[in-house]
Amino acid sequence: LNRAVEGQFAALINHINNTNCEVISIDIPSGLSPDQSVNGKTIIATHTLTFQFPKLSFFFPENSMYTGTVHILDIGLHTVFIKNVPANNFLLEENDIITLRKKRNAFSHKGNYGHAVIIAGSYGKMGAALLSCKACIRSGAGLVTAVLPKSGYNIMQTAIPEVMVMTDSSENNISNLPEVTKFNVVGIGPGIGNLEETGRVLKLLIQNCSCPIVFDADAINILSENKTWLAFIPKGSVLTPHPGEFERLAGNWSNGFERLDLQTAFSKKYSCYVVLKDHHTCISCPDGKSYFNPTGNAGMATAGSGDVLTGMITGLIAQGYSPRDAALAGVYLHGLAGDIAAEKISMESMIASDIIDNIGKAFLHLSKSELK
Amino acid sequence: LNRAVEGQFAALINHINNTNCEVISIDIPSGLSPDQSVNGKTIIATHTLTFQFPKLSFFFPENSMYTGTVHILDIGLHTVFIKNVPANNFLLEENDIITLRKKRNAFSHKGNYGHAVIIAGSYGKMGAALLSCKACIRSGAGLVTAVLPKSGYNIMQTAIPEVMVMTDSSENNISNLPEVTKFNVVGIGPGIGNLEETGRVLKLLIQNCSCPIVFDADAINILSENKTWLAFIPKGSVLTPHPGEFERLAGNWSNGFERLDLQTAFSKKYSCYVVLKDHHTCISCPDGKSYFNPTGNAGMATAGSGDVLTGMITGLIAQGYSPRDAALAGVYLHGLAGDIAAEKISMESMIASDIIDNIGKAFLHLSKSELK
Amino acid sequence: LNRAVEGQFAALINHINNTNCEVISIDIPSGLSPDQSVNGKTIIATHTLTFQFPKLSFFFPENSMYTGTVHILDIGLHTVFIKNVPANNFLLEENDIITLRKKRNAFSHKGNYGHAVIIAGSYGKMGAALLSCKACIRSGAGLVTAVLPKSGYNIMQTAIPEVMVMTDSSENNISNLPEVTKFNVVGIGPGIGNLEETGRVLKLLIQNCSCPIVFDADAINILSENKTWLAFIPKGSVLTPHPGEFERLAGNWSNGFERLDLQTAFSKKYSCYVVLKDHHTCISCPDGKSYFNPTGNAGMATAGSGDVLTGMITGLIAQGYSPRDAALAGVYLHGLAGDIAAEKISMESMIASDIIDNIGKAFLHLSKSELK
Amino acid sequence: LNRAVEGQFAALINHINNTNCEVISIDIPSGLSPDQSVNGKTIIATHTLTFQFPKLSFFFPENSMYTGTVHILDIGLHTVFIKNVPANNFLLEENDIITLRKKRNAFSHKGNYGHAVIIAGSYGKMGAALLSCKACIRSGAGLVTAVLPKSGYNIMQTAIPEVMVMTDSSENNISNLPEVTKFNVVGIGPGIGNLEETGRVLKLLIQNCSCPIVFDADAINILSENKTWLAFIPKGSVLTPHPGEFERLAGNWSNGFERLDLQTAFSKKYSCYVVLKDHHTCISCPDGKSYFNPTGNAGMATAGSGDVLTGMITGLIAQGYSPRDAALAGVYLHGLAGDIAAEKISMESMIASDIIDNIGKAFLHLSKSELK
Repeated sequence: LNRAVEGQFAALINHINNTNCEVISIDIPSGLSPDQSVNGKTIIATHTLTFQFPKLSFFFPENSMYTGTVHILDIGLHTVFIKNVPANNFLLEENDIITLRKKRNAFSHKGNYGHAVIIAGSYGKMGAALLSCKACIRSGAGLVTAVLPKSGYNIMQTAIPEVMVMTDSSENNISNLPEVTKFNVVGIGPGIGNLEETGRVLKLLIQNCSCPIVFDADAINILSENKTWLAFIPKGSVLTPHPGEFERLAGNWSNGFERLDLQTAFSKKYSCYVVLKDHHTCISCPDGKSYFNPTGNAGMATAGSGDVLTGMITGLIAQGYSPRDAALAGVYLHGLAGDIAAEKISMESMIASDIIDNIGKAFLHLSKSELK
Repeated sequence: LNRAVEGQFAALINHINNTNCEVISIDIPSGLSPDQSVNGKTIIATHTLTFQFPKLSFFFPENSMYTGTVHILDIGLHTVFIKNVPANNFLLEENDIITLRKKRNAFSHKGNYGHAVIIAGSYGKMGAALLSCKACIRSGAGLVTAVLPKSGYNIMQTAIPEVMVMTDSSENNISNLPEVTKFNVVGIGPGIGNLEETGRVLKLLIQNCSCPIVFDADAINILSENKTWLAFIPKGSVLTPHPGEFERLAGNWSNGFERLDLQTAFSKKYSCYVVLKDHHTCISCPDGKSYFNPTGNAGMATAGSGDVLTGMITGLIAQGYSPRDAALAGVYLHGLAGDIAAEKISMESMIASDIIDNIGKAFLHLSKSELK
Repeated sequence: LNRAVEGQFAALINHINNTNCEVISIDIPSGLSPDQSVNGKTIIATHTLTFQFPKLSFFFPENSMYTGTVHILDIGLHTVFIKNVPANNFLLEENDIITLRKKRNAFSHKGNYGHAVIIAGSYGKMGAALLSCKACIRSGAGLVTAVLPKSGYNIMQTAIPEVMVMTDSSENNISNLPEVTKFNVVGIGPGIGNLEETGRVLKLLIQNCSCPIVFDADAINILSENKTWLAFIPKGSVLTPHPGEFERLAGNWSNGFERLDLQTAFSKKYSCYVVLKDHHTCISCPDGKSYFNPTGNAGMATAGSGDVLTGMITGLIAQGYSPRDAALAGVYLHGLAGDIAAEKISMESMIASDIIDNIGKAFLHLSKSELK
Repeated sequence: LNRAVEGQFAALINHINNTNCEVISIDIPSGLSPDQSVNGKTIIATHTLTFQFPKLSFFFPENSMYTGTVHILDIGLHTVFIKNVPANNFLLEENDIITLRKKRNAFSHKGNYGHAVIIAGSYGKMGAALLSCKACIRSGAGLVTAVLPKSGYNIMQTAIPEVMVMTDSSENNISNLPEVTKFNVVGIGPGIGNLEETGRVLKLLIQNCSCPIVFDADAINILSENKTWLAFIPKGSVLTPHPGEFERLAGNWSNGFERLDLQTAFSKKYSCYVVLKDHHTCISCPDGKSYFNPTGNAGMATAGSGDVLTGMITGLIAQGYSPRDAALAGVYLHGLAGDIAAEKISMESMIASDIIDNIGKAFLHLSKSELK
């Protein structure tokens, strides 16, 4: 257990923090623990030069003010050694995604890439459905069907001709479960709202669906109000909450380590993948392992960014990625597409559609790195 | 007749296939026949270096696992000799398409490029109509009219102002045959569904139309349910089935050679062109000749890709290409546009609209090659 | 008067035309007159090398088969001499358009660039309205209002937010004249059809409007059915017929010289500008002068290309160009935008929207040439 | 006080102005005052070479004919000296905008960038709403909700999926105040018209809203008809009139100095920011200071350009800029985006959407300048 810094050392840290100098920490800012939460005096560094790996604590929002910009120094640890260190928490690397990427067989046809259904939208929030479906087809699903309230019909068919549409009997909300047995993955949540009738659809879906479900946004909020349903979600389902949604779902935390424990426990308990969206989005797996994502930027903090991620993960599962690989690759590519977009459009001006428009460039980036 | 490999040689092949080495076959993997189906032990090559021409068997999906990547070695056969070898099956080459391409006269006007009508769409599948019509006008038709169910009206007029619209009396389906005598080609099928009333329209169209018809998707499925109608389709019509649709239309096969025989017989019997969509799409002609297409990639295995092809062939016929030339050029350019798109967008992220967006680049590619 | 070639010379021409050789004519193919129609034996040249100026006859469709490709050879005529040769027919040059282009004052505001109204569209042909209005605002009009049948409302507002919309009381056709006094130019015709009620609107417009009107498409066809109205069109109006429309309006001709005479007489009689759309579009003026356009290509022979031209001329008048200058600059820039588009998209794949998308590049092209 | 030039000097100025020579003025054209309006004989210069700073009079439309093109000559005044000269009127410089730009924290989420609401649109003018909302989300607001008349619903949701929509009970106009307490900035005005019921909404908004309001277009016109409401607008609100709208609001002026006085007095009286749109848009602040903008061009004199600016300022306030900084940065970036657009599209062909499309490039331009 790490102790909080006290006495003379605390005074020294105080002194350093009160100068106006640039502060550079080596390996980790004094007072911060790599793997525990400690509430004592801590160096507020401008830069942290850390050895070989970022420390786990660096991934949590509450510590970013201490580390400043993190730089990783290669100290020459042997890769075999690295692989053999037992670990449960990983930083995703480009090579991980290149390795799990599925090559397309030249003789394949659209049937080989699956049929996804996305249940989304309500009056005034049809854009969420549109962004999700567009991201899904742009991530490589063979066929995508949108299930929408009636008032979303013209909107979707005009904006994305590649997506087929089934409409609910309700004008403005999702109120009936469509036939879902023919699909190999279901995405649900973007823009659906949390009416009682929409909740009933979610319950029926969980009861009737055997393929993986990707739950997002209001679908997660409905689950939070009905936690007994969680025991029945299909094995291998994926939930993509932001921190606020995850808190409603799993309870609150006082620091990032607690949050990670909650997330890991949740994945194990319900045999599902939790994609906790943050600067370093964390994907937790039923086997207890967690993966932190290095891609993405603050320009992606914009309306619809999460709907795009939901579509991408759904599209990857449709074409045959395991839910785990879909979650890892989806998160990584989503961030990479955002990084490519930021260079062309700036962070401020980036909107969710820009992320979709650069999914292809993100895939091509992987191809280029693979050739090196 | 080729015999299956047996005994000692079969054992050797087995041995080779069970090593983990890269295997390179010269001319053809042992055990595979160039022009017949043989079910014996066959070398599973990583690469096949074949002489002058790819063998016919290389075009069939069931043999791709044996050949691996095919490389063609020029062994210096004289072009006159090549031309004089009697053959019924051809590999399309860029130069074939350059030769049949029609140059535009500077004094021509839009009336010189014909007027196509495309009958397409049903509730939830208006995108198929949109993709087809857009591809048709983007392939050079002078005028394009879409015939749609009423609920497709706003969608089409908003997305493609260059296309005129006539609407059916039905809100959601094609239920009446419009006046088609003023058009010089009809495309029918994308997204129409197979309601009885839609079938009646197809029957009336066949009875009343004298210009070539391009049949796709559900139009082919309806024909499969009503094979007696086939005898009445206008001479020079084009059908563009994928393998599943062709099987419903013409019966099943146990290997690619049988499939090719079925396809050739069908073309001869009904004086039509069959575009059998696959990795190496095969176009069969009433004169017994067949053409395999070298362009395209697995990124085109995506929703709406076939609708685009239908529009392209229809657009080429409209502007004066013979149905044969339209089928050959349409298939070749469709694949080439997809190849150009894949370089910019990746295979995974490619959607049908990307193919349309690159039709122009495909035409320009031909112009550039011609100048060399 | 030029005589037709006869006897021995006719036999020689026949002989030359029957060889398979490339034929090169110097100045003009023998048998063709520069300024009259002659129906005798005429050399069919592959190329014509002509001195200093193209001959008038070269601009007419019926002579293109004789000249083949025309090349102009500079023989050093003095520019002052050239300017002093009295002439009524001119070939537009880039420098003419650069000269008449209006520079924008840095302190100007949108009110300085006028307010155009475009009356266009009917059920199934709303795209014509959309293309016209988009071209109008893209040519520099300060404000553009579209007058549409009700069913065009959503289409226009979704596709072009910069254009304001007023809707007719009729769902599907133009049936009432809107208040037009506040506009400084009216464009009418694209896609309106020729219903009796629409004709009444046109009649009322002519009676009530004092600003120039740009008449296109069905507006011209309605005028052809009601020639007595022509005497009342506002001075300085512009008509943009294609040859078929002009024939209905002004009677037929047996050759290009007769057509030019008809056109010139029409412009004088009704004090209007006639833009006769063809490979070398000819603009005739009330003062008896005519201008042939050198820009454009056969890729522009596509649906909606004329609607774009109507919008461009209307937009140029709106911002203060005289109708003459707007007709000249509109035609020239329309063709130039098409030429720029063809290089990027190919002739076959070019659609009317591509012309609009390149109007800006055409303006920039003029800026660059001016700097040289 | 500057006297008007008289007698012999007036005669000399007259003489110079009547030559056809290029006239170059040093520092300021004789007869023009730097800081007062003088109506005497004044040199009409082709170029003015001015020392260190442009004079205040150069920013007013009525003086542009005297200065011609203004060139600023650095005469080496010390920057400390410059900073210490007391001044109320400033020329915005790139560095000012770089300094006030807010850096995005890597751990931030969309909630950190606020939620803007834009109340806009009426039948036929929904495009104004669309342009405003698109500009708002493209300027970095975390969430944007559009409040529209019902008939704008499909238009907005189809064109911009990133924007959420709430619809009024009225089909064609804004007639009810929505719940606005959850938003942190309100934009109102683009395309709303000035019906009595819409005026009532504006009045209720002013009474109920505590966050800053950005008033534009008809919202300003309604205020001009109800000047007693001005005393109640939230402190720190922003008004973005063009000169005609400002005249209706604040009375008329006989020259730019009077206009500036009116504007400054208005800002002080109502504790608001006035963005007076012109070639050199002037932003006046409650503290009596005014800022003139150097960016922008005459191509921006086009329909919807002002709607875009409204959206940008609203979006900047949403994400945490003070109203002052949002007005300064919004105006500067709007002009810069227009300048970048003009280079790609020409002034004539530029439309309001082009400005939006280049907001990102404007932000990137600042980033690049900052690195230098």
